[in-house]
Amino acid sequence: MPPLKAYSNDLPYSYAAGVFPSLALMTAAPQRAMRLLLSERAAGDGVEKLRAICRENHVREEYADKALTRLSGKQNCYAAVVFEKWQAALMANQPHVVLVNPMDEGNLGTIQRTLLGLGFQDIAIIRPAADLFDPKVVRASMGAVFSLRVKQYDRFADYRAEHSNHALYPFMLDGAVLLEQAVQTLRKPYSLVFGTEGSGLPPEYATFGQAVRIPHSQAIDSLNLAVAVAIGAYAFAQGNPKEVG
Amino acid sequence: MPPLKAYSNDLPYSYAAGVFPSLALMTAAPQRAMRLLLSERAAGDGVEKLRAICRENHVREEYADKALTRLSGKQNCYAAVVFEKWQAALMANQPHVVLVNPMDEGNLGTIQRTLLGLGFQDIAIIRPAADLFDPKVVRASMGAVFSLRVKQYDRFADYRAEHSNHALYPFMLDGAVLLEQAVQTLRKPYSLVFGTEGSGLPPEYATFGQAVRIPHSQAIDSLNLAVAVAIGAYAFAQGNPKEVG
Repeated sequence: MPPLKAYSNDLPYSYAAGVFPSLALMTAAPQRAMRLLLSERAAGDGVEKLRAICRENHVREEYADKALTRLSGKQNCYAAVVFEKWQAALMANQPHVVLVNPMDEGNLGTIQRTLLGLGFQDIAIIRPAADLFDPKVVRASMGAVFSLRVKQYDRFADYRAEHSNHALYPFMLDGAVLLEQAVQTLRKPYSLVFGTEGSGLPPEYATFGQAVRIPHSQAIDSLNLAVAVAIGAYAFAQGNPKEVG
Repeated sequence: MPPLKAYSNDLPYSYAAGVFPSLALMTAAPQRAMRLLLSERAAGDGVEKLRAICRENHVREEYADKALTRLSGKQNCYAAVVFEKWQAALMANQPHVVLVNPMDEGNLGTIQRTLLGLGFQDIAIIRPAADLFDPKVVRASMGAVFSLRVKQYDRFADYRAEHSNHALYPFMLDGAVLLEQAVQTLRKPYSLVFGTEGSGLPPEYATFGQAVRIPHSQAIDSLNLAVAVAIGAYAFAQGNPKEVG
């Protein structure tokens, strides 16, 4: 393996920086782990647990304080696991969430953590988008990314062609049907579709399925994207209780 | 007025930095505005609208590029309104949201925007807590803070004594009742109570009212605070549709 570089989108590997995200990786996808980086100052139960699980999985450990500071941008990052990036196929009969051009790294991480918690494990991301495997996104997701099936597409049409049996529910400010109504008549399998932070989905998405509106007062322009996804996923999961477990 | 200082908690004034938050302030609480700060480079419809509404309200404008950079921490902040901080009394017969020790500034701003959108206008904050009027919180709220009634308390008991007729719904990881069940039997007026980011509410809160649990999978430790507040407020607002408008 060549010397470790600061993360960039075109590298084939990334970093789970911090003990908690590293443990999440080693629990959910240990076969992707390439190397454990430790600080000379690393100590504590979490670190020992991480070292043990890396040994079990034949992941080599090394002390790399300078690399940790460079990779994480922080002085107090005591451990990181280098991992190979991957794409997963989405499950055909599970509910999907489709994020069209999500640009904010913190939002993307929060959304992944929320969806994993609410029982949605299949996520499509339409590019351009924030980088799923950027260490900042991995950290914001609290490692949820390692337990999800995420696939990236260059065009929404490519996703739609691959999963043409999914009923689409685009979330739009002027959606024809209120969220609570949509949930009462939901058709499976389904996909919840959300647009970009600034401007939402383009108008033509209303023709792709049953456009849904989350009711909110005129006092705000729109809900934050991570908040809208949380409310939409919660409401659909309630209409579909067997899929939250 | 003395020379403007970088914001700190003990100043009697703060800054709405940016055109959008400044307009939100001038629309919702113009009587609190003290001065309009403009960059020499400020231009555009938003800026002209802001200048006009400041003139109508006899708010003096001045060019203050250095102050804007210092106050906002950004090179591209073109306008800010200096405003007097205030506390508001909470309405006795409206639903309340009580945030116990919210420490993250971004979360606090997002929560305010979400609550305003979902029709909750009365918020209690139990200190220690992130500073409601910190320019970073104001910006994260997109100016929602100016349309809310927010009161800060040093102890939860003080809030409870002041609003003893509110039914309390503490949100807890081990809450006895699922959110959907709580919503079906909600008693008005009510208060939704949420704990701190890291550790939630202390166990004794379960004895203060009907502890509520948002169902989530074992794959995550907890939902993000802003996400939990969004889901809880949405579900209660649905049980209470007249209060979302």
